[in-house]
Amino acid sequence: MASLDLRLYVITDRKISGGRSHEEIAAAAIEGGATVVQFRDKELSGRKQVETALRLRDIARASGVTFIVNDRVDVALLSDADGVHLGQDDIPASMARKIMGNKIIGVSASTVEEALLAQQQGADYLGVGPVFPTGSKADAAPPIGLTGLAEIVRSVDIPVVAIGGISQENLVDVLETGVSGVAVISAVVAASDITQAARNLRAVIDAHSSYGTTHR
Amino acid sequence: MASLDLRLYVITDRKISGGRSHEEIAAAAIEGGATVVQFRDKELSGRKQVETALRLRDIARASGVTFIVNDRVDVALLSDADGVHLGQDDIPASMARKIMGNKIIGVSASTVEEALLAQQQGADYLGVGPVFPTGSKADAAPPIGLTGLAEIVRSVDIPVVAIGGISQENLVDVLETGVSGVAVISAVVAASDITQAARNLRAVIDAHSSYGTTHR
Ligand code: NI
Repeated sequence: MASLDLRLYVITDRKISGGRSHEEIAAAAIEGGATVVQFRDKELSGRKQVETALRLRDIARASGVTFIVNDRVDVALLSDADGVHLGQDDIPASMARKIMGNKIIGVSASTVEEALLAQQQGADYLGVGPVFPTGSKADAAPPIGLTGLAEIVRSVDIPVVAIGGISQENLVDVLETGVSGVAVISAVVAASDITQAARNLRAVIDAHSSYGTTHR
Repeated sequence: MASLDLRLYVITDRKISGGRSHEEIAAAAIEGGATVVQFRDKELSGRKQVETALRLRDIARASGVTFIVNDRVDVALLSDADGVHLGQDDIPASMARKIMGNKIIGVSASTVEEALLAQQQGADYLGVGPVFPTGSKADAAPPIGLTGLAEIVRSVDIPVVAIGGISQENLVDVLETGVSGVAVISAVVAASDITQAARNLRAVIDAHSSYGTTHR
């Protein structure tokens, strides 16, 4: 695994994109400075998922951006994605590792226990949240807040990406917890100008990390 | 791939099983003579699918019955199933082959074109239908009838399993088309006595094949 730049992690979501495709979302977000693109669309058939993932992988790779597939280990493998992101209801990281080789495996965690288990099972990074209330995921757990986020960051050795309700307004507070990056959906995907929305977030992230990433 | 006995191919379906679990369906069907069990449950999370598939694999293997996972190539691999069954909307067989090694790959086909393409892409067998109208699959294509089934059987070199509305009543007609076996859902899974339903079908299949399988 090459060094993993998790600073601005954008999850594609067609449902809130105002008709823009996964490819359009990804290209615009990358232009604005996304460092990771995660493809997530549980409503697409396996065939459409592979076809879309292959196109997204090409878009990401052309810009040196990390490409992650949500949930489906087979789709991640067959699209030659850089990795897969697994929720708590998805295939466990320890099993996914058996067929993912040294590709990236990310795991969602909402508690210290889930975070430690994922780390033990070989996760390369954690998606931790929801930090704040969010409308993007119907099945989201209750928000863990900045305190919950900071506690998990302190508990693990692998990088943490914060997720859930992160916006330009609360971004600095999130970064102060010591996360390696932030994952966003609506803050970027629902924006009228996806590129500008990503660029605005990246500006805050870059300004913050210029202080050094360990000043928490 | 060991020799593939497709004579009685039972697809587990919790929705029409009257509350019986995948494991109960599989065990009862195997006792009645199922030669293949396919696990299908698109509503289960990836994690639950792997957990269930691991149990079903153990049940099938203990009886020397072939175990196939529907749709999810990753679940098939991680449960060490004997193979995967792919619909026309699932990952294409040619792609699945890249990570399935010499495990069994079955493909659903409703037309000669789909059948020939699947064969060319390396499918080990075809599930062909729906032969008759069926209530088990909401998204089923129009029935192809015995004539359509026979045409596909004649067109390909790989074994064909007929599927869709097959019952004790029409079973002999189906077998006369030269199929290698029949796949059933409701005829077995919805029966009050799954074992007896499977046994009755097997009796007809065995009596028919005692004439030899090439007398079409
Ligand atoms: Ni006959």
